[in-house]
Amino acid sequence: MDIIVLKPGGYDEEIKHIAKKLEGMGLTSRISKGTERTVIGVIGDTSKITEETDDSFRAIPGVENVMRILKPYKLASRDFKKTSTIVKCKGMSIGGKKLCVIAGPCSVENKTMMLEIAKEVKKAGANFLRGGAFKPRTSPYSFQGLGEEGLKHLEAAREKTGLPIVTELMDPRDIEAVEKYSDIIQIGARNMQNFRLLLEVGQSRKPILLKRGLAATIKEWLMSAEYIMSRGNQNVIMCERGIRTFETATRNTLDLSAVPVLKKLTHLPVVVDPSHGVGILEHIPAMAKAAVASGADGLIIEVHTNPEEALSDGEQSMRPEAFKKLMKELRPIAKAVGREI
Amino acid sequence: MDIIVLKPGGYDEEIKHIAKKLEGMGLTSRISKGTERTVIGVIGDTSKITEETDDSFRAIPGVENVMRILKPYKLASRDFKKTSTIVKCKGMSIGGKKLCVIAGPCSVENKTMMLEIAKEVKKAGANFLRGGAFKPRTSPYSFQGLGEEGLKHLEAAREKTGLPIVTELMDPRDIEAVEKYSDIIQIGARNMQNFRLLLEVGQSRKPILLKRGLAATIKEWLMSAEYIMSRGNQNVIMCERGIRTFETATRNTLDLSAVPVLKKLTHLPVVVDPSHGVGILEHIPAMAKAAVASGADGLIIEVHTNPEEALSDGEQSMRPEAFKKLMKELRPIAKAVGREI
Amino acid sequence: MDIIVLKPGGYDEEIKHIAKKLEGMGLTSRISKGTERTVIGVIGDTSKITEETDDSFRAIPGVENVMRILKPYKLASRDFKKTSTIVKCKGMSIGGKKLCVIAGPCSVENKTMMLEIAKEVKKAGANFLRGGAFKPRTSPYSFQGLGEEGLKHLEAAREKTGLPIVTELMDPRDIEAVEKYSDIIQIGARNMQNFRLLLEVGQSRKPILLKRGLAATIKEWLMSAEYIMSRGNQNVIMCERGIRTFETATRNTLDLSAVPVLKKLTHLPVVVDPSHGVGILEHIPAMAKAAVASGADGLIIEVHTNPEEALSDGEQSMRPEAFKKLMKELRPIAKAVGREI
Amino acid sequence: MDIIVLKPGGYDEEIKHIAKKLEGMGLTSRISKGTERTVIGVIGDTSKITEETDDSFRAIPGVENVMRILKPYKLASRDFKKTSTIVKCKGMSIGGKKLCVIAGPCSVENKTMMLEIAKEVKKAGANFLRGGAFKPRTSPYSFQGLGEEGLKHLEAAREKTGLPIVTELMDPRDIEAVEKYSDIIQIGARNMQNFRLLLEVGQSRKPILLKRGLAATIKEWLMSAEYIMSRGNQNVIMCERGIRTFETATRNTLDLSAVPVLKKLTHLPVVVDPSHGVGILEHIPAMAKAAVASGADGLIIEVHTNPEEALSDGEQSMRPEAFKKLMKELRPIAKAVGREI
Repeated sequence: MDIIVLKPGGYDEEIKHIAKKLEGMGLTSRISKGTERTVIGVIGDTSKITEETDDSFRAIPGVENVMRILKPYKLASRDFKKTSTIVKCKGMSIGGKKLCVIAGPCSVENKTMMLEIAKEVKKAGANFLRGGAFKPRTSPYSFQGLGEEGLKHLEAAREKTGLPIVTELMDPRDIEAVEKYSDIIQIGARNMQNFRLLLEVGQSRKPILLKRGLAATIKEWLMSAEYIMSRGNQNVIMCERGIRTFETATRNTLDLSAVPVLKKLTHLPVVVDPSHGVGILEHIPAMAKAAVASGADGLIIEVHTNPEEALSDGEQSMRPEAFKKLMKELRPIAKAVGREI
Repeated sequence: MDIIVLKPGGYDEEIKHIAKKLEGMGLTSRISKGTERTVIGVIGDTSKITEETDDSFRAIPGVENVMRILKPYKLASRDFKKTSTIVKCKGMSIGGKKLCVIAGPCSVENKTMMLEIAKEVKKAGANFLRGGAFKPRTSPYSFQGLGEEGLKHLEAAREKTGLPIVTELMDPRDIEAVEKYSDIIQIGARNMQNFRLLLEVGQSRKPILLKRGLAATIKEWLMSAEYIMSRGNQNVIMCERGIRTFETATRNTLDLSAVPVLKKLTHLPVVVDPSHGVGILEHIPAMAKAAVASGADGLIIEVHTNPEEALSDGEQSMRPEAFKKLMKELRPIAKAVGREI
Repeated sequence: MDIIVLKPGGYDEEIKHIAKKLEGMGLTSRISKGTERTVIGVIGDTSKITEETDDSFRAIPGVENVMRILKPYKLASRDFKKTSTIVKCKGMSIGGKKLCVIAGPCSVENKTMMLEIAKEVKKAGANFLRGGAFKPRTSPYSFQGLGEEGLKHLEAAREKTGLPIVTELMDPRDIEAVEKYSDIIQIGARNMQNFRLLLEVGQSRKPILLKRGLAATIKEWLMSAEYIMSRGNQNVIMCERGIRTFETATRNTLDLSAVPVLKKLTHLPVVVDPSHGVGILEHIPAMAKAAVASGADGLIIEVHTNPEEALSDGEQSMRPEAFKKLMKELRPIAKAVGREI
Repeated sequence: MDIIVLKPGGYDEEIKHIAKKLEGMGLTSRISKGTERTVIGVIGDTSKITEETDDSFRAIPGVENVMRILKPYKLASRDFKKTSTIVKCKGMSIGGKKLCVIAGPCSVENKTMMLEIAKEVKKAGANFLRGGAFKPRTSPYSFQGLGEEGLKHLEAAREKTGLPIVTELMDPRDIEAVEKYSDIIQIGARNMQNFRLLLEVGQSRKPILLKRGLAATIKEWLMSAEYIMSRGNQNVIMCERGIRTFETATRNTLDLSAVPVLKKLTHLPVVVDPSHGVGILEHIPAMAKAAVASGADGLIIEVHTNPEEALSDGEQSMRPEAFKKLMKELRPIAKAVGREI
């Protein structure tokens, strides 16, 4: 149902016009004249009312506002599917009792380093390996990733450790390669509203890790999940990684309240990326713990054996020992909220 | 030390002028001519360089930027005092191993309700009682609090339960009354930069709970603590209560990363207010747990026996049973991070 | 009229409960059961429904959302008063055809400087003089203003030039002094929600220049105007001075769209402060011109004869010659939008 | 030059390590030991120091902060090219004395409508035609544009009116089609950091209209221009279209201060989109005037002959008469700032 609010004044003609327009859409209007405003309630199967229908009503002179009651997403909504989605991947589950921990370097830099880090994070208890072969960088002069070569190093690391691979897709033209080597395809924050890319991965059979855009509302983020799901891929994992605010003491502002809010609105699993969320090495453990306590289904953390030589995000990469220590500290918190790690 | 960056071009005269100006302040300048920019480093006791000194250098033509290296606050800084401050209040400690839990209604509405809620929160394990007698409200037509009468109800509740009182001061003219009845004086988010009020409570012997302003950076928030401390009152408790962002799914965006960031920058204790931070009843427990996991020294939570009849913040007030349940659930998390509750 | 949206599910009891509650308030409920949501429209004199009434409805289990249709402010609303308010002050008008230009230093520093600047801005065509005697400063170690002595220097400048005085009030305890010497009382951005101060100046007979808070929505800003007006003082001038966003290239983000938005929502005059809005000397003229083109009723600009020696805001103070040049350049723009300067 | 600030404490080893690392990069370090912090200035050809080099220094224990003095973009910088770039397109210039006005519908809906609107905007004085054939929409259920068919309608409209075409590219796979039919390629706000798309249009010979991202700082926006320019395409037009802030009274917050700021930092032309910037029909003229007064090189405005039936953005599309009136009103403002329209 939608609510149409008219501007003050006698708008009998507008009311008739709107009623007729709604009728043409198979909907009924219900008019309530208040002392200060007239309000039209729209009744019927309002699922066809898209946001641009709302806009077209807003374009009618005499209309002050159109308020939407129903959510603009469906497949992603918990109204539509009550039970929590558990994404299965190579024998692992995301969204179940056991938390998923995705760890690894920001970028894949070379094979040796990749194997070394993979072994370390596996030993520490991670159950997925991350690493970027295609890297979105703010500067054209920065290291842009090894491309397909990087994907091969990831594959080698999976062979050695058995850890499934999470890696980013930036360009619809790379989908074949990324699908071939990876187990979960990541859509980065800067591509959360790259709608063509979303439609592309909507046709993939691989689960999608959908990072929240820097300035994306939770509603828009769910709409991006809806894009993917509308093409048939129901295995979407939401990933909170911090939003952009006025605060400069941290790289981003990690919005942990998004975790319970999403758990209410959607059936999809939610993981948290404290590495990008806070961007300061020494504060990552605190935020990882807070994420687990808030009810997240997992974490994604940057780990590097030699942060100082990392080709990207060195300053926020944990060393393996620190990561191992964190994993240990997370256990009792996971247990306290009824989870395992 | 400050860094002065000059615009490109030959600015010999500017350099001389700046050097002379610095000399007059008892400081030395150290000039580094790079290929593209000339940079002047300022050496000496730069503690006298306030932000307006920086501004006055910025006003010199030829100066492109002035970068500040030292923090503009001192008494609040962990550089200045290494050990964490433990605020003592009526036999309780804030900032020690045991977490402080401040609970109670948004506003004091009447004596019966106040006593009832006080008993309930005490039973559930809270160790401080909150309640507003002076209420900052966005609308002049909203309930503005009972004033001194409300303070008396708080006093009565303390007598019955032994719980120390936390209540807000809005106006320097009410300081005597608020000091008389309360144990901790709260400065609300909207008054975080009411500098006259800060100077006033800086002369009080009561601890001050300083809420973060809606759009305050952590640096500005610490500067407000510095205001209070500069007048002699070292017992300041920082309270994160959410910042204003573009996200509308929650009332504010609770910035939990402020907890570890503050723990690093300052020796002052940090508590978190999940009630205002998220503003949605069902999500408060998740955020309270996350706050404890992130390392907070305590929580401040709105509890009401009859939220539907509350004169303010009814929609975000927990019922006593829910609060009791939360307290129980917080225990293992507190323990996991080396704390008690 | 308010709209209450219920959660999905059969909530007959809730509906009865809500209907009864509304009845007790002299209101009628109108129930519309849609296929997915049930909506209750509230009919009658809803002017008594404050925001906390909305909150109390939100506290009822089964209620998903409460949507407000009417604006929460009245006296400030153009619905309430159609004709634009013209504030009169010492023979000058703010809000009429002629633009008001308020110019002067950030702080009053001494008498000689004050007289000199006053003469210069008058010569350039300013019709009001600004200058702070009480200064809100982020640091307790910064210059806090000359206090009453500063007010006397302003008075002396008015005597010499005839320019009416605009100066800031920070503390309700200073109202007598500020009222005595000034012609327009400024409420600064950081005090926009210092509600006690608003009530205080609501009883003054002097016009109030109400600066927008750093993180204040236009609605909240109008609510602060309503505070003042609810106490009897209808002469409120709204002043846009930039909001806090993620952008750091400017001191604040000057929200010029607030000008036409306010012109629609309220009958009160609107002036713009490009000095604080952008905070970079060389960009102030462009933003001053844009402000006039956007329909502002006036400007407030920082001018100093010796910015490098200014005790505050030196880096954003225009020199008199630059200000004079700007005044000349503003004329054809004012004319183009049907105004005079 | 970069500045490296060390944490307090005796870090002789760190200093040596850093000095050696810099030496390896062909750079010299200049150490200044202050009373509270030690600072290392980096001298030499620092143009090779990318942001990740900075990050790798931040990853060294003992380093508190790395401050960057040089801008991370070059080709886009006014330091690099002093004279303003004038983009030539089909006999028109963008960035010269004459303002460019790009007008047309949000989406291309059908041929008749396209021709009709094209004739109207031409008559009113627009010199470019806009219209989307590929539409980025938040909802997968919204109209996604006519695709290549839409491009053909645009071509037909150009044939009839002579107006060059501005249209959006969303997917690198559509570049051939978009290049074939359009005269200026638009990169939308949501794709401002779609780096693959930027590299793609960097190889085009068509000028690029680069919209600012919703949460993009001016620096990041210039970095995206740099991406395009680094591939050889120097004809980039910056387009301010509003940023995301906490304010909900407008669709976005139009940041007009970006105009003078960009004019200072870059030689590229800057146009403003008041339609998306404010998103409320009646406020577009005020913001268009303000944009011209602020020094913009042009405007991009949504015009539709039947907004109520528009398939997108109906509520913010101007009717041709209103647009014609605006064009007339813009003339004296353009003249006042030394421009023509």
